[in-house]
Amino acid sequence: MQQTGQIFHKALVIGLGLIGGSVLQGMIDNRLAGRLYAVDFDKSVIHHAMADKLIQAGDDELLNLANTGVLTDCDCVIIAVPAFAVKAILEKIKTAIDNQLLPSDVIISDTASTKGNILQDAFAIFGELPPNLVLAHPIAGAEKSGFMARNGALFKSHKLIICPHDFNDKQAVDKIATLWQSLGASVDFMPSDKHDEILALTSHLPHLLSYALTYQLATDEENLNIFKYAGGGFRDFSRISASSPIMWHDIFLANKQAVLQGLEDYQAILNQLKADIENDNSEKLLETFEIAKNAREYFGRLLVEKEKLKNL
Amino acid sequence: MQQTGQIFHKALVIGLGLIGGSVLQGMIDNRLAGRLYAVDFDKSVIHHAMADKLIQAGDDELLNLANTGVLTDCDCVIIAVPAFAVKAILEKIKTAIDNQLLPSDVIISDTASTKGNILQDAFAIFGELPPNLVLAHPIAGAEKSGFMARNGALFKSHKLIICPHDFNDKQAVDKIATLWQSLGASVDFMPSDKHDEILALTSHLPHLLSYALTYQLATDEENLNIFKYAGGGFRDFSRISASSPIMWHDIFLANKQAVLQGLEDYQAILNQLKADIENDNSEKLLETFEIAKNAREYFGRLLVEKEKLKNL
Ligand SMILES: NC(=O)c1ccc[n+]([C@@H]2O[C@H](COP(=O)([O-])OP(=O)(O)OC[C@H]3O[C@@H](n4cnc5c(N)ncnc54)[C@H](O)[C@@H]3O)[C@@H](O)[C@H]2O)c1
Ligand SMILES: NC(=O)c1ccc[n+]([C@@H]2O[C@H](COP(=O)([O-])OP(=O)(O)OC[C@H]3O[C@@H](n4cnc5c(N)ncnc54)[C@H](O)[C@@H]3O)[C@@H](O)[C@H]2O)c1
Repeated sequence: MQQTGQIFHKALVIGLGLIGGSVLQGMIDNRLAGRLYAVDFDKSVIHHAMADKLIQAGDDELLNLANTGVLTDCDCVIIAVPAFAVKAILEKIKTAIDNQLLPSDVIISDTASTKGNILQDAFAIFGELPPNLVLAHPIAGAEKSGFMARNGALFKSHKLIICPHDFNDKQAVDKIATLWQSLGASVDFMPSDKHDEILALTSHLPHLLSYALTYQLATDEENLNIFKYAGGGFRDFSRISASSPIMWHDIFLANKQAVLQGLEDYQAILNQLKADIENDNSEKLLETFEIAKNAREYFGRLLVEKEKLKNL
Repeated sequence: MQQTGQIFHKALVIGLGLIGGSVLQGMIDNRLAGRLYAVDFDKSVIHHAMADKLIQAGDDELLNLANTGVLTDCDCVIIAVPAFAVKAILEKIKTAIDNQLLPSDVIISDTASTKGNILQDAFAIFGELPPNLVLAHPIAGAEKSGFMARNGALFKSHKLIICPHDFNDKQAVDKIATLWQSLGASVDFMPSDKHDEILALTSHLPHLLSYALTYQLATDEENLNIFKYAGGGFRDFSRISASSPIMWHDIFLANKQAVLQGLEDYQAILNQLKADIENDNSEKLLETFEIAKNAREYFGRLLVEKEKLKNL
């Protein structure tokens, strides 16, 4: 891990769930900020973070905390609330800046899984794309969620994607990149539309496809009986069907365009496979499966390398 | 585990891979047969089984072994070769019976993942459905394959489906049920078309859907680069894409009708989800995902119970 020392004077984390809590913990463990503050509309989480002396102060309402004046020299806000709640947070940040409770050049960053929609929201709220708004997405997670599941090393050896926009301040982007590198992540840059396309394929689509098959089995005439006959293949394939319906609902709608495009391309492949099975097109079927198998084995090797890096 | 003692006087296992090897090992561990024989067209496997004194005799060719006369009082043949190879084995068994090298009332059973096609093949070969042909399918497996991966306890606490046909001899069916119960499996009975329908949904379809998405990513313009951004959800979803192309090609074609029907129903669900996303139909999306999530959690509990039974 890079040794960087303090990056921010005063940092504020909004949303102390798995991701926000892990960012906070990682910033503490690596001494990346002089002072740390937090906002979460769940009071108990703030109490907990205060009691454990993880933060200097916190509140369940951003504007209350800002009104105390402690954020007038805050230089970084990390928004780690569910995607659909980011818009309301950006509105409050705008209000705080307008009332000089937050500096106008405060770096604003996020962790959300979709990016295009946040750029749109930011543009609508600020009337421009703020130069200090740096969109970031850690490709990391855990089965568990919430503050108690936080882990300062969660991002170690994982990718973090930054989506710079056309009006970004280079220094702001660099600082956010340094922050995540200091948390152990490997930072890549790409435009937000590319990000949304890639994530639609690698993350959003698998969730949709898994939900769809589990739903099909659950509503089969055999009813839940059918699950008695499902084995290890289905177990792994369907694991993500147990993900939060609300969170995924939000993501599919927030990334609607890219998800629908990915789904259409997928449907074309399914139609082709269907025709190949109907017509006993062995050659074509074997070719398709071979390409998939090789790609999955390549992906498996990437995962092994990542694990090795993690244990360094 | 039930204590049954010897079920068969002389049993022959054809195909000493993961499944055949595990049946053989389980029969030895539980002393279920007086004498054991094996056939596998891979000579080294037979040598190995002989050297380890697991079998009395074996050969890479069924008719060679039969010609030695050791099978004239064999009362059970378990066919555990890949599905597409079962037909050729049944033909050889017919020849051996016709030449009085195998008794005409020998119980013939299998382990294949598809059943309708085997019934058809058997009918074509024997001119009837042999009363002593008992179709069985263990819902168990392992990442590994081949004889060296064999495990006498592989079937413990797993389902085994027997598909009795209309002309089955009840005693033959009972003996095969007892065999698998003695190996620790929990035996269910269902008609072969029901079996093929259920397996299409719980096993064959997930493999097809996983192959399709991994293929889509592998052929994306980003090429293999895209896998850098895939996380744990995709990892689990796509694990079965690394399965044997030849084996799955065979299964999709062997179970063509049920696979295509399952696929059509799946496509209808995908189309509905697509429309729901297009139309921001939050209520419908949430309802679908909730049903899937609940079903997956129910399935998860079934798995936990199975694990508990396994460790008894
Ligand atoms: N969990 C993952 O695997 C993962 C991975 C990458 C990115 N993300 C993204 O990171 C963000 C946070 O995810 P998480 O897994 O930490 O979620 P989480 O559910 O664990 O935590 C979210 C936290 O935000 C708080 N919160 C919600 N709305 C709020 C509001 N309006 N004001 C203040 N606090 C609010 C909640 O009380 C909770 O403590 C999401 O945008 C998610 O898409 C998650
Ligand atoms: N592996 C599983 O998860 C699993 C689960 C349930 C059922 N099955 C079914 O069980 C059967 C065996 O599967 P497996 O996983 O043990 O396969 P495997 O590849 O591990 O073993 C198959 C064995 O059969 C031999 N063989 C192939 N063709 C032959 C022939 N014509 N004559 C003689 N020997 C031949 C091979 O040399 C090999 O040793 C298949 O029908 C499969 O569909 C497999």
